[in-house]
Amino acid sequence: MNIVELISKKRDGNVHSYEDLTFIAQGAAQGTIPDYQLSAWLMAAYLNPLNEQETAWLTKAMAESGERIDLSGLPKPWVDKHSTGGVGDKTTIVLLPILAACGLTVIKMSGRGLGITGGTIDKLSSIPGFRLDLTPNEMKEQAAKIGLALTGQSPDLAPADKALYALRDVTATVGSIPLIVSSILSKKIAGGAETIVLDVKCGSGAFMETLEEAQELARQLVKTGALLGLSVKASISDMSQPLGATVGNALEVREALDVLQGNVKGTQRTRFRDLCLHYAGETLEACGKAGSIEEGAGFAASALESGRAFAKFKEWVLAQGGDAIWEADTLPKAPVSRTVSYDKGSTYVSGIDAQVVGQAVIDLGGGRKSKNDVIDLSVGVDLHVGIGDRIDQSDLFTVHAVDEASAEEMGKRIYEGISFNAKPVEPRPLILGSY
Amino acid sequence: MNIVELISKKRDGNVHSYEDLTFIAQGAAQGTIPDYQLSAWLMAAYLNPLNEQETAWLTKAMAESGERIDLSGLPKPWVDKHSTGGVGDKTTIVLLPILAACGLTVIKMSGRGLGITGGTIDKLSSIPGFRLDLTPNEMKEQAAKIGLALTGQSPDLAPADKALYALRDVTATVGSIPLIVSSILSKKIAGGAETIVLDVKCGSGAFMETLEEAQELARQLVKTGALLGLSVKASISDMSQPLGATVGNALEVREALDVLQGNVKGTQRTRFRDLCLHYAGETLEACGKAGSIEEGAGFAASALESGRAFAKFKEWVLAQGGDAIWEADTLPKAPVSRTVSYDKGSTYVSGIDAQVVGQAVIDLGGGRKSKNDVIDLSVGVDLHVGIGDRIDQSDLFTVHAVDEASAEEMGKRIYEGISFNAKPVEPRPLILGSY
Repeated sequence: MNIVELISKKRDGNVHSYEDLTFIAQGAAQGTIPDYQLSAWLMAAYLNPLNEQETAWLTKAMAESGERIDLSGLPKPWVDKHSTGGVGDKTTIVLLPILAACGLTVIKMSGRGLGITGGTIDKLSSIPGFRLDLTPNEMKEQAAKIGLALTGQSPDLAPADKALYALRDVTATVGSIPLIVSSILSKKIAGGAETIVLDVKCGSGAFMETLEEAQELARQLVKTGALLGLSVKASISDMSQPLGATVGNALEVREALDVLQGNVKGTQRTRFRDLCLHYAGETLEACGKAGSIEEGAGFAASALESGRAFAKFKEWVLAQGGDAIWEADTLPKAPVSRTVSYDKGSTYVSGIDAQVVGQAVIDLGGGRKSKNDVIDLSVGVDLHVGIGDRIDQSDLFTVHAVDEASAEEMGKRIYEGISFNAKPVEPRPLILGSY
Repeated sequence: MNIVELISKKRDGNVHSYEDLTFIAQGAAQGTIPDYQLSAWLMAAYLNPLNEQETAWLTKAMAESGERIDLSGLPKPWVDKHSTGGVGDKTTIVLLPILAACGLTVIKMSGRGLGITGGTIDKLSSIPGFRLDLTPNEMKEQAAKIGLALTGQSPDLAPADKALYALRDVTATVGSIPLIVSSILSKKIAGGAETIVLDVKCGSGAFMETLEEAQELARQLVKTGALLGLSVKASISDMSQPLGATVGNALEVREALDVLQGNVKGTQRTRFRDLCLHYAGETLEACGKAGSIEEGAGFAASALESGRAFAKFKEWVLAQGGDAIWEADTLPKAPVSRTVSYDKGSTYVSGIDAQVVGQAVIDLGGGRKSKNDVIDLSVGVDLHVGIGDRIDQSDLFTVHAVDEASAEEMGKRIYEGISFNAKPVEPRPLILGSY
């Protein structure tokens, strides 16, 4: 087999065989196909998109391109969850303990953040001592004991995806749905999951800005999963406003802790808890533990309310070497905080632009503009109001910053991202569709 | 400016500005844009082809990406000729002395052969001593003295083309007409030419196999030249059969010498001489020295018949340090020759497949399969018959080889490439269109 022939094949809109795609995935993983040929193929595949069968084959080939975690011996179902990324998305920190408390085995690899969408690994790294470099064996051992384990991306799992993703990022070929699908699912399959639930974010703070794109991605994720014999479910969730009250690494861990402890006040925190319950419900339904998303969400709510999910969270943090932050808050704290209020009388909050808030948190130092940036885990924003709230000279949000100047500048920027309306406003629904 | 944005622009079928294309050409020439991004852009430009204005701009940007030869002071017109490459194409060796004998200034960079299409540089390197590494200054000085100079490709002229061509070759993006046009013309412009005549080969032994593709390339070459203020003419010539009697480096130089000396016998040599006269005529017309191709061809024929072209050839070879091969034949000779005859009685030759003959000469050792192959200048084939010839137990061709085994094997292969017909056959016209 010859890579130039395979590039020509896709260039001319022809269909690849499984062998073709294995050749490409192996060549990407092992570095035997040069980057300039992979990127020509990626552009051909962007402009002549892979069909459903090709997408499934590429996913399989990428999953098989390196090590695979074998979960044999652990209780089934083996589940994983993935989000396409959004502003304030700390769902994993709450969802995983809920699922483990409901008896599922959850093994998850998470990524670091880039751009306005944060990464779970960054958020959890604000818990002093929390280990994010577990080996596959350590993952399995921990999951056998407590039902869940989470680590950073391993270069040994789906290395073809790592190579292709790095190229897509710099060759304007990120936005191809079949390539996104195979990237997401190959890592999950290599990680051993059989039931996978996907949170496809949609809105100004997400990669998929339009509902049509998000629907297409959700459909293709589910379809590809089915072709590979997996149980894959996907929902589209709103990302036109930040998820929950906080954006910023340590602040988001504190918010997750609040939800796990049942300390849920205000529109934003409630919306975040509801999202966790939805995806917990969808996961329980996907693996047959509940008859519907709603029934599963009910089970999840009871795991939260009974304290079982919080107990699991504590087990988890301690198992991975983290501080008992629920006893003594050792999360990093920013030196400066500044609260911004609305001083023009009575009105309704009609919008909080996720893009604006996400960008402001990057500019506070809480996110990465490029891959090797060092981030400040303490900075961020805490929203005191949500869309639809009636306000009257109320506090809108608090900026946590490294100095007064950045607190003031970002306070102004975030204020500009909030819109108001004299009449009552309904927020966009939290869940925009399930597949 | 940002290369990812430029890749996205072409990916989405948008139109580049001159500044965009200059950024790409400079980045390719200076190595500041990595190959994997250039190749993604090339595939985007293959699938969303550059329009005529973009093609002209890319050509200009590539011509300006390195050194340029300034022919000021040399008598005008400054002409160059280019062929898209074919089997047995030794036209340059005869055409250049004709044009210089007609008073034009000809400065030419030629390439080495790859695949079945040979390269003028390889052919001329079979003349012992012939220098093919003249500097731009040496070229100018020699052209001032004798009206012509030829050298190998300089890495300093149109370096953007060199970088992009190397990538196109390995990323299945060679066959894009706008990219071919800009590659051809940028080198000619950097070399100082103002009048450019192009021989677009068409048939099984050429890059353009169909007449439609060849017509499109010829039209776009002429159109792009016009947009850049140049006088560009193009003709399409037949490459379904080899050009002339010989294929193989030293053999082709000997055939060129025959034509220059007026020693033109047989269908194949006559056809080759006619092609030289056509392109000489087209060049003379293009720079206003003749009122039509036919009139120009007449001037060229008189330059040949009077011996002026041959005298110019001798000056040229001696100026570049080559042996006086017309006095003592020091061209390399193969140790074995084997003549194959037709022994089935009387018939007509109806086809000589250029592809088959070209491939056989590669396999004899006379051409390159990959860039760094060393070639044997002595081997090749000499065709004693042409399409339309009536034969009766005649000799068909002679194979010149390094040993008996390869002579026999290639003799069989070439025989298979020749077809016969009991009824008279007209060869395909030599010139299939002029633009």
